[in-house]
Amino acid sequence: MAPSPGATFSHAERLARLRLLRTDNVGPATFRQLVHRFGSAEAALDALPALLKRTGKPLRIVSLAQAEDELAGVARYGARLVHIGEADYPPLLNYIPAAPPIVTLAGGANLDWQRTVGIVGARNASAAGIKMTRLLATDLGERGYTVVSGLARGIDTAAHRASLGTGTVAVLAGGLDKIYPDENIPLAHDILDNGGALLTEMPLGWEPRARDFPRRNRLVSGLSLGIVVVEAAKRSGSLITARLALEQNRDVFAVPGSPLDPRAEGGNALIQQGAKLITGAEDVIETLGSADPSRTALFDRDWEPDLVPDAEPPSDDDRSRLLGLLSSTPIDVDELIRQSGLSVGTTQMLLLEFDLAGQVEWSSGQLVALRYA
Amino acid sequence: MAPSPGATFSHAERLARLRLLRTDNVGPATFRQLVHRFGSAEAALDALPALLKRTGKPLRIVSLAQAEDELAGVARYGARLVHIGEADYPPLLNYIPAAPPIVTLAGGANLDWQRTVGIVGARNASAAGIKMTRLLATDLGERGYTVVSGLARGIDTAAHRASLGTGTVAVLAGGLDKIYPDENIPLAHDILDNGGALLTEMPLGWEPRARDFPRRNRLVSGLSLGIVVVEAAKRSGSLITARLALEQNRDVFAVPGSPLDPRAEGGNALIQQGAKLITGAEDVIETLGSADPSRTALFDRDWEPDLVPDAEPPSDDDRSRLLGLLSSTPIDVDELIRQSGLSVGTTQMLLLEFDLAGQVEWSSGQLVALRYA
Repeated sequence: MAPSPGATFSHAERLARLRLLRTDNVGPATFRQLVHRFGSAEAALDALPALLKRTGKPLRIVSLAQAEDELAGVARYGARLVHIGEADYPPLLNYIPAAPPIVTLAGGANLDWQRTVGIVGARNASAAGIKMTRLLATDLGERGYTVVSGLARGIDTAAHRASLGTGTVAVLAGGLDKIYPDENIPLAHDILDNGGALLTEMPLGWEPRARDFPRRNRLVSGLSLGIVVVEAAKRSGSLITARLALEQNRDVFAVPGSPLDPRAEGGNALIQQGAKLITGAEDVIETLGSADPSRTALFDRDWEPDLVPDAEPPSDDDRSRLLGLLSSTPIDVDELIRQSGLSVGTTQMLLLEFDLAGQVEWSSGQLVALRYA
Repeated sequence: MAPSPGATFSHAERLARLRLLRTDNVGPATFRQLVHRFGSAEAALDALPALLKRTGKPLRIVSLAQAEDELAGVARYGARLVHIGEADYPPLLNYIPAAPPIVTLAGGANLDWQRTVGIVGARNASAAGIKMTRLLATDLGERGYTVVSGLARGIDTAAHRASLGTGTVAVLAGGLDKIYPDENIPLAHDILDNGGALLTEMPLGWEPRARDFPRRNRLVSGLSLGIVVVEAAKRSGSLITARLALEQNRDVFAVPGSPLDPRAEGGNALIQQGAKLITGAEDVIETLGSADPSRTALFDRDWEPDLVPDAEPPSDDDRSRLLGLLSSTPIDVDELIRQSGLSVGTTQMLLLEFDLAGQVEWSSGQLVALRYA
């Protein structure tokens, strides 16, 4: 269930949440489990040393001083940390699997975060692709839509530039101080100067790695009612964004192109798979503005698994039994509970331990698999 | 109901059928009604003078000598007249509304007339459109499909040229001796030299008029299991062919293109309306070769209205009552029967009269409207 917006946390709890989230192996799902299980981030932090001892792999817990440093650093950039549940947390993000517990947000105070369209595509875009993007972003902006993209070269850049005056959000794969690519640092400044926003879930100082880009893409779609793929090769990041958008129950639109143009392969394939063919902003608005009941369903979905009250600490037998059932093939938690014979609470606690120890990885919030280092 | 293939007609009956069909205002529907009502074309020809007298607009009935002249002329071109019901009448044509009772056919004796794909598109095609057509037609040909098109400039020409070696059918809008455009006369010869076919429902010597091209297009789709639209502007002949194909229960495929390219407008619009986006021959074959039950339904459909036994000759009262109910808005025959209170046989006979008098026109075989000269 999404948190009710408008929550206020104490300064101490905000710092505790930041420390917890920045601790190694504490992703959004683990963060949420810890906070719910122990009642607050402060309580979870207190419990963490004992929990980590059980995993046998001690983690370095982020110190209070480090958290205060990040807070001060973010403030120096004129940005702020926004926690899930707070009033200015981007509303559509609440409804994605593994929503980031904290985002760093610069600017965007007056943006419309509800009427949003993501535009993504190739970095090595063609002149026609750039022009198409410019037309789409301009028209969507004029019709009141905020344009979301990833600040990459090519299509992303064209989308942001064309919507500077009407509202745009750039989602970063690294820290706020690590804009990538360098050539788009001026664009990032232009976005802020025009009332747009920069958003990231990564801490200040974080250099984006290859794997951070797909992770970032889930936020581009997560911030958007639907995403438009303008030019995309097969097996491109844009197609990952499209897949993530579908998992998030968002609309996927694609601009068609000649089958002779490799940059049209991805978009054409998406259309064959059911994405809507669009030839202009009107086609997008027609779908997003319509009273399709599935649109409101977007806001009813309950992505997060239920949490059960705390159980007795698991035994070593329980631990090895559950670990023995895991493999590199993702399996549903309910299936694990059935096969292990363990209680729901014990299973969740053990998976939390495994997660903190970096032994497992999650997909879609309910499927878990062994992680190979 | 489609006639059972393999019928043989006497030489006299074939000549009578040709005379009947070539008489003014005798289109496919009227032809069929006359032959069924009077039992044979010979009997219908005998009855025609009396019938025409009732319409008040005497028609010039084609003479035996004129029919024999056409037969001889067609033979001089190495072609033949094929009647519906005969063994070498193109099988898929049997299942379209207002199937031509007689076609002039040159060549094509060894073509596969069952595995056929129509390819249509712009006359002023782009280089990319021509290349795409060449790839499609080549691949479809190599996979055993006969390629059908309209011998026009641009896409049609590319489709025929690329499938010369594997089998192609050109459907003409005029007579066999009136190839249009002139520049494609050599292509027509190449088609025949390579075992392909030229087909038309128009008589020898017929210069194609503007209205004959859409009429021809219904045969391009009618000869095909499905049609591919490669490049088409909005409101183009290719889109008419696509609409006719849908009415004939045939598949419609479209090649996508950039929304910035006006020649892609038609194809993209077709995809938005439900046509299948294709990027190559494989996408076409996947649909046409599949065991979709709707494919076999193609051959079960009964397009033609039922005919009822002859009634008493209609009275002048009947005649004026039915004429009064007609307007320029097409209306269903069943509705006319209900509203007029006339019998089915009388209504059909009167509509036949009106048709011969050039007073009405038909659409889709069951809808009739007043014709304005």
